[in-house]
Amino acid sequence: MDRVLDELLPQPHGRHARVQEAMRYAVFAGGKRLRPFLVATSAGLFHVPARQALRVAAALEAVHTYSLVHDDLPCMDDDVLRRGKPTTHVKFDEATAVLAGDALLTLAFEILADEETHPSAEVRAGLVTGLAKAAGSEGMVGGQMMDMRAPGESHDAEDVVTLQRMKTGALFEFACEAGAILGEAGSAARDTLRAYARDFGLAFQITDDLIDTLGDAGAAGKSVGKDKDQGKATLVSLHGIEGARAEAQKLAARAAGRLAGFREEADLLRVLPYRLIDRDR
Amino acid sequence: MDRVLDELLPQPHGRHARVQEAMRYAVFAGGKRLRPFLVATSAGLFHVPARQALRVAAALEAVHTYSLVHDDLPCMDDDVLRRGKPTTHVKFDEATAVLAGDALLTLAFEILADEETHPSAEVRAGLVTGLAKAAGSEGMVGGQMMDMRAPGESHDAEDVVTLQRMKTGALFEFACEAGAILGEAGSAARDTLRAYARDFGLAFQITDDLIDTLGDAGAAGKSVGKDKDQGKATLVSLHGIEGARAEAQKLAARAAGRLAGFREEADLLRVLPYRLIDRDR
Repeated sequence: MDRVLDELLPQPHGRHARVQEAMRYAVFAGGKRLRPFLVATSAGLFHVPARQALRVAAALEAVHTYSLVHDDLPCMDDDVLRRGKPTTHVKFDEATAVLAGDALLTLAFEILADEETHPSAEVRAGLVTGLAKAAGSEGMVGGQMMDMRAPGESHDAEDVVTLQRMKTGALFEFACEAGAILGEAGSAARDTLRAYARDFGLAFQITDDLIDTLGDAGAAGKSVGKDKDQGKATLVSLHGIEGARAEAQKLAARAAGRLAGFREEADLLRVLPYRLIDRDR
Repeated sequence: MDRVLDELLPQPHGRHARVQEAMRYAVFAGGKRLRPFLVATSAGLFHVPARQALRVAAALEAVHTYSLVHDDLPCMDDDVLRRGKPTTHVKFDEATAVLAGDALLTLAFEILADEETHPSAEVRAGLVTGLAKAAGSEGMVGGQMMDMRAPGESHDAEDVVTLQRMKTGALFEFACEAGAILGEAGSAARDTLRAYARDFGLAFQITDDLIDTLGDAGAAGKSVGKDKDQGKATLVSLHGIEGARAEAQKLAARAAGRLAGFREEADLLRVLPYRLIDRDR
């Protein structure tokens, strides 16, 4: 994955090199590469060439990274540390971080629309549509807006689920659906993978919140206890630690169950939710 | 144009309504709609249906607006007034302005990739590629990066031209080329329109700098004398007022001359550079 990202990210040059250095800094600062893993694994179900899957995976990782760079800005979550390293605006400066995020988002669409991503222009246009909907004001950006407004507002469990589904779930859903789009699979397969990603994404988020609450800095690799300090509602604050654990377990099982129509080729996707919710132990 | 923008921008709703209100505020705060005009006029050369041209024009305006919203941020140019109105981060807040810009950029790609923009997916994917290249780190964002770095660096005329070509020229070039892409014209027509836009864009930028230098706040509708105060090099500071005027005149003539291969259907495009450089009188 990192080799493909290195290929697709521009080589810093000229008097604008700084923004391209910041793009690379943010992308190569670590991270689980979870969205790329989802793209590659779902693409594997449909025998999509690895090269195509890796390009789409790189586009997803670029969008995920842009969202982290902008979310970390002082006017947003004001984080100075991410994955144990200075955030992009600390390492460079705020203006460069804003621009690097902008350029990463733009690059993602350039990658998807390129002929090398898939011979069919219909597929490429479909990928662009899917990513734009997942990342836009009805998806990731809308979720982040809700999150920024959350501290001063009351939230019930339904609000928290909506927020998470938009903020992190939409990109997970597209990551899983992308494999089916690349494989030119029918709408049933696309819906199945989206449903899987929906359950998986919420289980993942609950586990993130559990790690945050339990204060395990080593496992999280970022500032801990921050959401709680800012008075943001999470499913952990609403259901308690044991209630949230039970909910994550239920969602992991439901996610795995969504894949009943696939054989052993889907085993990696079946196991993944359980592996990820075990992070809080 | 504004009717189509109104149709394509999301209607504010739900707990994330604020970001969608900010998107609309920024887009409907005025503006010359120059890029939409270039798309519509170049599309007219190839008898492209108005509906298609207006959708692409809306995407261009969304990208232009996003760039203004982010450029106005305190960490960038720190402008509080734009087109005589409070800038987006003043009217809302910084976080909302960052997110509204992000969402406008994303929306532009969603519009281009949609089937309603053109029946051919090849054309749609081509539009996405063209916009992404024009707006990314080798285009508009790279130019803004150069501009942010400029005050502390020495610049000659060539640097200033490169900066302007990236920061504002790239989007002008794509606006003009987009008409030819929609019309499925050959590469010769595309190259001609890009060359026209290159000359036109620089003439336009010199005129903007002249207005800025001459301090005609009424014509510019924004804070004046700002670039000079920040010590940024412009072609006016390098060539003087009369030298810059002569250069703009030369570029306008060359832009009009590029269209020799078209008949009277290109008259609007021929006249436009002269109309725009007359703004400083």
